[in-house]
Order: sequence, then structure tokens, then C-alpha cells
Amino acid sequence: LDQVNVSIIGASGYSGTELYRHLARHPRVRVNGLFARSSAGSSFAEVAPLFRKRSALEVQQYSAELTESSDVVFIALPSGEAMHLAPELVARGKKVIDLSGDFRIKDIAQFNQFYGHEHAAPALIESAAYGLPEWNRSELAMAKIISNPGCYPTSVILPLAPLLREGVIASENIVINSLSGVSGAGRKAALELNFTEVNETVKAYRIGDHQHIPEIRQTLGAITSISPSFTFLPHLIPITRGIYTTITVPLIDKAADIAAIFEQYYGNEPFVRFHPTAIPEIKNVAHTNFIDIGYREINGGETLVVMSAIDNLIKGAAGQAIQNMNIICGFEEGEGLL
Amino acid sequence: LDQVNVSIIGASGYSGTELYRHLARHPRVRVNGLFARSSAGSSFAEVAPLFRKRSALEVQQYSAELTESSDVVFIALPSGEAMHLAPELVARGKKVIDLSGDFRIKDIAQFNQFYGHEHAAPALIESAAYGLPEWNRSELAMAKIISNPGCYPTSVILPLAPLLREGVIASENIVINSLSGVSGAGRKAALELNFTEVNETVKAYRIGDHQHIPEIRQTLGAITSISPSFTFLPHLIPITRGIYTTITVPLIDKAADIAAIFEQYYGNEPFVRFHPTAIPEIKNVAHTNFIDIGYREINGGETLVVMSAIDNLIKGAAGQAIQNMNIICGFEEGEGLL
Amino acid sequence: LDQVNVSIIGASGYSGTELYRHLARHPRVRVNGLFARSSAGSSFAEVAPLFRKRSALEVQQYSAELTESSDVVFIALPSGEAMHLAPELVARGKKVIDLSGDFRIKDIAQFNQFYGHEHAAPALIESAAYGLPEWNRSELAMAKIISNPGCYPTSVILPLAPLLREGVIASENIVINSLSGVSGAGRKAALELNFTEVNETVKAYRIGDHQHIPEIRQTLGAITSISPSFTFLPHLIPITRGIYTTITVPLIDKAADIAAIFEQYYGNEPFVRFHPTAIPEIKNVAHTNFIDIGYREINGGETLVVMSAIDNLIKGAAGQAIQNMNIICGFEEGEGLL
Amino acid sequence: LDQVNVSIIGASGYSGTELYRHLARHPRVRVNGLFARSSAGSSFAEVAPLFRKRSALEVQQYSAELTESSDVVFIALPSGEAMHLAPELVARGKKVIDLSGDFRIKDIAQFNQFYGHEHAAPALIESAAYGLPEWNRSELAMAKIISNPGCYPTSVILPLAPLLREGVIASENIVINSLSGVSGAGRKAALELNFTEVNETVKAYRIGDHQHIPEIRQTLGAITSISPSFTFLPHLIPITRGIYTTITVPLIDKAADIAAIFEQYYGNEPFVRFHPTAIPEIKNVAHTNFIDIGYREINGGETLVVMSAIDNLIKGAAGQAIQNMNIICGFEEGEGLL
Repeated sequence: LDQVNVSIIGASGYSGTELYRHLARHPRVRVNGLFARSSAGSSFAEVAPLFRKRSALEVQQYSAELTESSDVVFIALPSGEAMHLAPELVARGKKVIDLSGDFRIKDIAQFNQFYGHEHAAPALIESAAYGLPEWNRSELAMAKIISNPGCYPTSVILPLAPLLREGVIASENIVINSLSGVSGAGRKAALELNFTEVNETVKAYRIGDHQHIPEIRQTLGAITSISPSFTFLPHLIPITRGIYTTITVPLIDKAADIAAIFEQYYGNEPFVRFHPTAIPEIKNVAHTNFIDIGYREINGGETLVVMSAIDNLIKGAAGQAIQNMNIICGFEEGEGLL
Repeated sequence: LDQVNVSIIGASGYSGTELYRHLARHPRVRVNGLFARSSAGSSFAEVAPLFRKRSALEVQQYSAELTESSDVVFIALPSGEAMHLAPELVARGKKVIDLSGDFRIKDIAQFNQFYGHEHAAPALIESAAYGLPEWNRSELAMAKIISNPGCYPTSVILPLAPLLREGVIASENIVINSLSGVSGAGRKAALELNFTEVNETVKAYRIGDHQHIPEIRQTLGAITSISPSFTFLPHLIPITRGIYTTITVPLIDKAADIAAIFEQYYGNEPFVRFHPTAIPEIKNVAHTNFIDIGYREINGGETLVVMSAIDNLIKGAAGQAIQNMNIICGFEEGEGLL
Repeated sequence: LDQVNVSIIGASGYSGTELYRHLARHPRVRVNGLFARSSAGSSFAEVAPLFRKRSALEVQQYSAELTESSDVVFIALPSGEAMHLAPELVARGKKVIDLSGDFRIKDIAQFNQFYGHEHAAPALIESAAYGLPEWNRSELAMAKIISNPGCYPTSVILPLAPLLREGVIASENIVINSLSGVSGAGRKAALELNFTEVNETVKAYRIGDHQHIPEIRQTLGAITSISPSFTFLPHLIPITRGIYTTITVPLIDKAADIAAIFEQYYGNEPFVRFHPTAIPEIKNVAHTNFIDIGYREINGGETLVVMSAIDNLIKGAAGQAIQNMNIICGFEEGEGLL
Repeated sequence: LDQVNVSIIGASGYSGTELYRHLARHPRVRVNGLFARSSAGSSFAEVAPLFRKRSALEVQQYSAELTESSDVVFIALPSGEAMHLAPELVARGKKVIDLSGDFRIKDIAQFNQFYGHEHAAPALIESAAYGLPEWNRSELAMAKIISNPGCYPTSVILPLAPLLREGVIASENIVINSLSGVSGAGRKAALELNFTEVNETVKAYRIGDHQHIPEIRQTLGAITSISPSFTFLPHLIPITRGIYTTITVPLIDKAADIAAIFEQYYGNEPFVRFHPTAIPEIKNVAHTNFIDIGYREINGGETLVVMSAIDNLIKGAAGQAIQNMNIICGFEEGEGLL
């Protein structure tokens, strides 16, 4: 394909907006459908004023027919909605990239437990490819539906997977502390997201029952054949965008060359940046599709601390989705993202 | 009175919380009633966890009977609610201090226009005293109901009134730019108050139709006998608390000693701080009942710029309300506030 | 020219970084020189880690010879430095675009007064073109040295100039309130810029003596032939980037069609967005080269309030500089900026 | 004693300011000496404008003689300064409370390694009592010099100590993630503390070599007789004040009643608030001397996660110092702090 037509369902949310921002300047993409429930009938420039003089599109009420001329359909809706839309889109031959958690968990029981509602399209789960390009590239190229990874899992799996696979770290006593900006909670009215409630404070939340726990476990298991035992601790902090993850794990092989391992796995990856001494910071990845990874060996070599930083809306959502689109369309993986 | 019992209606809001914080340590006050609709039946310490180990009170569903043993009742509810509660409280002989706009505007037509709904207790408006202690102290002592000033008007009237009254500034071409923290919008779920929507941005709002315009006009008229013509420009900025007001006005009397005027009017005021050279900053008044005022004469003496800073929740709400309570109870005006 | 080579002097500052970010993806630009005093000898990716995997350049100690192969040289240094470098660069035939205030003020006495030091290259001032494309496009194309406008002046002149020129507003009693993010103060160590000093507060500063006052006066005079009398009130607010300007001015011609005037002047401008009803917000222009303009007629048509929002580092600095580069190189004006 | 006179050395820093704020309203304290190098000779109200109309004191250049009439001397200076002042103050019979790290580490070699400079008063270290009231109350009452705990250690030791002592958690594989507001770095000019560098980002720092590591180890060892092996991971986040600590540790005794243990140790403590289900948040402790502690048992009871929140300038510095003063003076422990 030289050029693809794409639709975005959920165009007025934070991920939808980022999708449009990047796709609009992608040299091989034409966005020809923008869907959003509450603002259907308005021009997109009125719904998202940052796109004035940049977009002449109108927001439409979604119906499957309206994606007729689209090759790729991005679904950027809150959890629980994509499962109702994806089957028909797939049946119509669309390449579907879902940014929600609806198709990430293979084990239905786990899905139901952590997401708190029944899955509406279990038949489609198995054929959904997990859109983590650095580990799944070949599988993605053929997939009809791609389940885009969660923001936290992206920040956790990329630094952990090579170390687990190489067997240099323990597979237990892994502690994962993650800090997320508020945009991760989506664009919605909620007292607990009111500026005054969030500003100048921090809180941990969903300790032990966050829906990204089974996603991390399943994916690490799939790509490393190890079933690690870890504690995942998400926190909300007063920044708009970004996730910062600090992983602490016993180092088994004290002689291991951690830098060499990361270099081996990610040296040629366009969007993974590893540095042997620098500590990651969110500001270095904000508004980009990069993940930055750094590490320290401490406690006399007994402990490895690995840190990662991403923009939750880009590498943790829209950017990674476009990276996936580039793969399935046969484009350069970084097109529209650099 | 040696000691008073007080109730707070709307205890779970931002102003209600500040009222409790200050009243709980006021040496001559006993808080014996806390009312809040949504959290009735819970302990206040659960509703407002900052008060754990500091409060054993329970939040109750409001009814007038439950204020039986209270001498003073603070109403800290959104606009349009106090008008339904105040008449019965006054009839029961309570001293009522209302923090909303319900009893601030004497002209019913203006009230209806700017607040957008009909007044439910017009008969009580006339007897409500405007609780700006620096200008209304004697009237307040006798009042049955006190209408606590708005946050913006407090920041505007205190710096402007002495200058207008002394006739040293023009009474037209007055431009008032005000910046408010987000807590001024109240404790509620609203998309436009979501952290991500407010952080790292600024917007002006309600240009020309803000409900504080008639309050400023009426009060300046009452205390200066001048009917000034001004433009009031509120802006929302990403801070939790504080209002910053910058007033620009033609200087009529270039020989006027501005510092002397402020010193004359406010030199003995416990909560007004004027400085002849320093520029106010919100951080100097945050969490206090002070207003800081500064000024510059510029443009060859043609223009006066006056700046003020307050904490919108204290001097602009709860603190000023307690200052008013101190006055009507015959306490030291700063008790519980310094 | 099909392609130009450019150098950036001051590459490690906030404007320098933004210059590189945009120039690196500009299809007709090759950055071949990055200069910064403190970090000379390091790779740019180490100095500015956000450019890891995006830049292989090394930062050099500046010398004029090292710009030999550059066609355009951007100077992004603190005030008072470009005046020492520009003459030699111009003599060497480079197109110079200076982002500082060194070449903005034609009247040397005014420069010395407001900038507080003697000008070192007065002979070059006259030949410097003021880089405000919307008003100076033709003059810019021929200029050897372009003086890029200040951030505040950009946010003030663009909304004011058409109205003054059409004679619909008064030329006196103009009040300009501007709010700036902290990046406007440059990348430096200073107690008053410490996070704790700036966060959760606001202050006005340099009332009456800010160096952008003569720049606004001179430019409005030059492009409207009117010498307006205005008050400029800069404030520092706790955001990283953005300027918000609110202008209040008596409306002379109540029948004037303000929207039509803006449409006439800026309807075809690629980076000026005017909206007849929407209020500008910084978040809509952040990380873009747009200026958003809105307005309200109030006080019974006596007063016009005009608001504008820009990103101080883009339209107020690096973006506008690149827009100017595009003009002098004959490129599409928006190339690399959209 | 009915009343004590106190001096503050380092009155213009963030901890010094908080000390004054609380001491000035303490019913049994008279502040009679304020010392600060850079602002000596100015009124304190000019140095710290938040104290206008609240303080008539002048800031003085420090000399030991000037503390003559003080009973208690607080030293709130950057590390490495108190060691030069404390010996003479102790010799003069003053009760000294040092807020820096100078007298916290008993092992000189450790001190030199982690603080990076030689200790100037090793003889005094042994007699310094560690001012953690909840664990050291009796020792403190007699001490001539009190070494006030570090902010991070306060947030770590209080939640960990009871659990270690009761033997219900492992003494290894303890991971401590801490997030600190920027005021913890002190009041100084530094590029890395510039608002633009800190805002909207996060970074881990001093992984493995932070000076609070030996303090935590020494104190936990002293009060639990266990030498735990832990990883301490400090992060800088964009808030002004507050520390949030999340501790993950293997749970040894799955049948342990964690809530009962905290209740047993801290149920009567005036400034420790434990809640069996609520998750701590910084906003609940900001501007107070409280520490809030919460926990979760997860991973099928294998793992305990304990969270704590403090205001780094109050419970982590000035407030705890005043609590210590109250103890050594025989006052109610919460006087001036509630």
C-alpha cells in the first residue's frame, strides 16, 4: 500500500486526539473518519480547538458503514466498548487496532475478574495480536486485530523482558513502582480527578487488583517462558502525561553485563533508548514515542534497579498504535512518529 | 459570650473544610454540628481524612432542628441553596453567616440576571449585612444574617475603595484582571476542572457577565458614593488556591501619596497588609486571612497599578467568615485566625 | 535553494532546543553546527537527552569559522551576547536570525535604558529586520539579519495591530495583562525560579520598565502609524510554557465588525487563528507555532477585550524564527512547523 | 519551665520559616533570635514577607553570644554547618536541636562516605539523641543535643519499625520507594531545581548512595535489633511539599494482624495516624505534623505493602523538631502543633 485511509473511534478523548495529531501529519495516511458520541455533528476543530486550521473534518456518530472506505480503524474508547464494535469491523475486513484493554487478556476468567464485567466477544480474543512491536513484530504483520498494550505494561515489560529471558535476574521478589500522570485516567468528569484533588499530592491506588497485572503477567510469560512473581504498585501524581516505572529485583548473575543485554535486544529498536549511566526522566520522552531505560546495580551487586519513562499517551497509547499500524501496512516503523 | 456553639452546613466542600480547620482551634468556639448531604452518617474524619485524630464529629443530614444548640450557623453551599435555608434559621434566632452569593445583591433584578435563577427569599436580602469587616464593622455587629463577600470582590474592593473615596483615581477606565486558583470553582466533578484540562494552561472566562460584577459595583458604590465604570476579567490558572488581582486605573491626582492613603485606611487593620514597594505574591498569603496590597505609579504618573493577593478559601471565604463571626460575637477579630 | 545548512548558537537553552527539535525534521534543512559554551565537546544527545537516537551531532565551542558551511545562523543566547557575534557573521555573508532583544530596538537610548547596558554593534541595528512575518514579510525576504520578536510583543502586537490600524479602538487607555510560563526566563539557576518559589503562586513583575515595552511601542507605531499609549503588565505563573495576553481597550467604533477585521488581516495567515466566539487557551497552542485570538465586546459596547495565547518557545521564539528562515530561504512558510 | 526563649539559626530557609511559623504561635515559646547569613540586618518580615504584621524581629548575623538569652537553639542549615556551631552552643548550656544530618550517623566512617566530607565535631556525635519521639521519647528528655531525623527516614522508619520488631515481615527484600517534593532540596538557586526542569517530570536520583540510607539502617537496627536489608529509591516529583513512601516486603507471618500491631504501637501517638483500609495521600498531611500510614496484604498474603505520607517540612523537619522541643521542655507534646 502506498497510502491508507483510517478512522478513529473515540476521537475526542486524550488518546484519540493524539492519534489524530500524529496521523494527520503521517505522509502515507489519510484520516477519513472521526467518531465521537457526545460531539457528533460538530467540526473536529470545534471539539478539539488545537486543530483549528489543521483539520476540516467533521465528527460523526459511529456506525460500521461509515468506516467503509477506511483500511484501518483505531478504537480509542474506555474499556468495555471495543468488544461490542470490533467483531463487525473485523468481519468487514478492516484492520482494527484497539487501544483499550478489551482484547489484551487471553484468559476470560482473568478478564472478567480484573475488568469487572463479562466479555462480549470472547471468540475474537484469541485472534487478537498483542501490539508490542519490539517483541511481536512478526505476529503483528498478519493480524486482523491488534490489541494495543496498556500504558503501565509497556513501561514494565520492555525493561523486564530481556533480563528475565537472559536469566540474570530473579523471577520473584520483583517490585514494580509506577507513577502515572492524570491523563491516564481518561478525559472525564470525576471528583477524584478535579485539579484541586490531584494537585500537590500523591496516592497509591488499586494495590493488588489493577487490571494491568494480568496483562503484565501474561505477556512476560509469553515472551520469556518464565512466570515471574511481582508486585505492581501504581500511583497517581500531579503531571498531565508520562509514566515513570522503577523496578527492583534481586540480581542473580552478578557478572552479567546488563548494558550489553539491553544493547543486544534494543540496540536497533527505533523507539527504545537505553543508557548505561543516565537516569531516565519523563521530560525526555514527553510528546515522543520513545521509552527511556536506565539501571543501577546496588547493594553490593545483589540488587538491580531498572527505571523506565514513557509518555503514556504516545508510547503508552497512540504512538505505539501508529507504530503497529506502520507494521501491518508495511510502512517504515517510525513514519509519522519521528 | 465566652464561648459559642457553631454549625457548618456544607462541611465537606472546600470552604466548609477550611471553616472547620480554623473553628476547631478557635479558643472560644465549639463546633457542634456538621452537615453535608452526600456524606451524612459518616464520621467527619472519614469524609475529610485530614481531620483524623482531630475530629470525633459525625456528619449529619441537615435539618433546622439539629442546629438548636448552635448560636452561629455557617452556610457553605453552592449558590442558590442558602436562600432556602436562611429564613428559618434567622427565624429561630440563629446568627447566620452565608458564604454564597445568595444574599449579596440588593437589586433583585440584577441578582436574577447574573445568577440565572429567581431569588427564593427576597424579603431577607435587605436585612443581610455585607461582611467586609474593614468597611462594615459597625453594621455587622448587629446583623442577624451576614452575607460573606465573594473571593474576587474581596480582592478588588479592598485595594480600590480607599483610592476611589479619596478621589485620587479616575472612576472610569478601570481595568481589573483577576487570576483564580481552581478551588474557587468548588469541590465537584466537572470535565473542565479535570487536572488534565486545567494544568499547564490559562483561560479567561465569563468576560462581562460574571456574577461578581454587580457585587463589586454595588459595594464600591455603597462605600465610596461613586459609581465606577470598570472591566472585570477573571481567569482560571493552574494553582489550587489564591486570587491575584491587578488593577489599572488612570491616576487623577499625581501628587497623591498613595502609600499614605493605604496607611490611613488600613494601617490598623489586622488582616490588610500594604507595602509601599514590594509586589504581592500569592504564596505570602496562602493559608492565611491576609490580603497583601502593593502598587506602582507608571506612565509618567498617568497610571496607577494596584495589585492584591488573597487566599480565596481564607480571606476570600472561610477566614473572612470567621472574622465576621468574631465581630458579631464580640471576640477579638483575629481570634482563631492568626 | 533546495536545502540549507544551519547552525544554532546557544543550542542547550530552551529556545535552542526547540530550534533543533523543529529544524531536525524540516525537510529542507540540515543542521550542521550546534554551539553552546558550557557543554562544548559533548554530544548533543548527552546535553539534551530528549535527542538520544535523534541526533549524532556534537556541541562545539563557538567560533565564527565553524559556521563556514552554514547558510543560516540562529543565535539563541541571553540578551547582550548576539550583538558581539552578529557583525562578523553578517560580514561573512551568513543570514543571521537573532532570537534575543539585541537588535529589536532602533532607538539606542531606549535600548540602553531598558536593557541596562550599552549596545556593542549600533551600526547593525538599522539593517536588522523585525521578524514578524504577518506584517513584515516583504522586508524580511531581503534582510541580512532578522531580529526575532519577543514573546510578549508577539502576543500583543498581532491582536492589537489590525484594530489600531482600522481605527476602531482608542489609542489610549489600553491595558495589556500578560501571563508567562517560567521557561520564558531562560534555562538558568536562580532562586526566584526554583520550583518551590514559583509553584502555587503568581506575581506581577517589572511593572512599567519591562524591556518589551519599547518593542511593542515601536512596532505598533511602525505598522499602524499610531503611537498608542498603553500599560503592559507581565506576570509569572506556574506553567512551563505559554503566554496568555488579555488586552482591554475602549471601543471607538461600536458598529465595527471586529470579526471581519481579523478575518481580513489574518484569514489567510497560516499561523494566526481567530475565532469569533471561542476564548483562547494556552493548551490549544502549546507545542505549536499558532497564535489564537478571541474577543468580547462588553460594557454596552464601550469596551473591547481581546485575548491571545501562544507558546512562548514556539510562536514566541523558535517557531517564529523558523517561519522567518522559511521566508528568507523561499520555502513554504509552514514547512517544518505544521 | 513555663516559657522558653528560642533562637533559630537558618531562619530564612524552608525549614527555618516553618519553625518560626509554628513557634510564633506556640503558647509557651518566645522566639528571641533569628539568624541568617545573607539577610542579616533586615527585618524578618522583609526576608519572609509572609510574616508581615506577624513578626517584628530582625534577622541577625549569627554569633554564639547572641543566643545568650535563649534556652533552646534550633539549627536549620544545610549539611556540614551545624557541626561547626553545635559544640559551643552545647558548652554554653543551650539545648540544641539540629535539623541537618550532621549528628545523625554514629559511625564516622559511614558519615564521611555518605556525606562526602569529614566530620568537624566527632566528640559530640555520641551524645546526640536521635529525635524520633515515637521511639526515643525517654532518651530525648535528657539530651543536650537532639539530632532531628531526616525527612525520608521519618517516612520509612515509623511504618517499618513495628513490623520488623514484631517479626511479621522479612528482614530482607525490602523495597522502599519514596517520592519527595522539591522543597526537600532546600531553598537555593540550582538549574536542576528550576521550575521548568522539575515541572511535568519525574526522576529517580542517588540510587544506592543517598545519605539517608545509613540513617535508616542505623535507626532500624537500634530500635528493632534487626539489621534489615533494604533498597531505598528516592524520586523527585513536581510538588512543593510532601513525601510519599511505598514499602514492599515479604510477609512472613500471614496470620499477623497488621492493624493490631500498628494500633498497639501508635494508637496513643498524637501524630501517627494509622488506617486499616484507607490509602494515605499527601494532601491529608500537608501543613501538619501527622504521618499517615496504610497498608495492603497482596499476592495471596505473601506480600505486604505499607504506605506513608508526611509533610517533609513539618513532620519531616520543623514540626518534629518542635515536638522534640516540647519533650525536652516538659510541655504537652502537641503544643503549637495542633
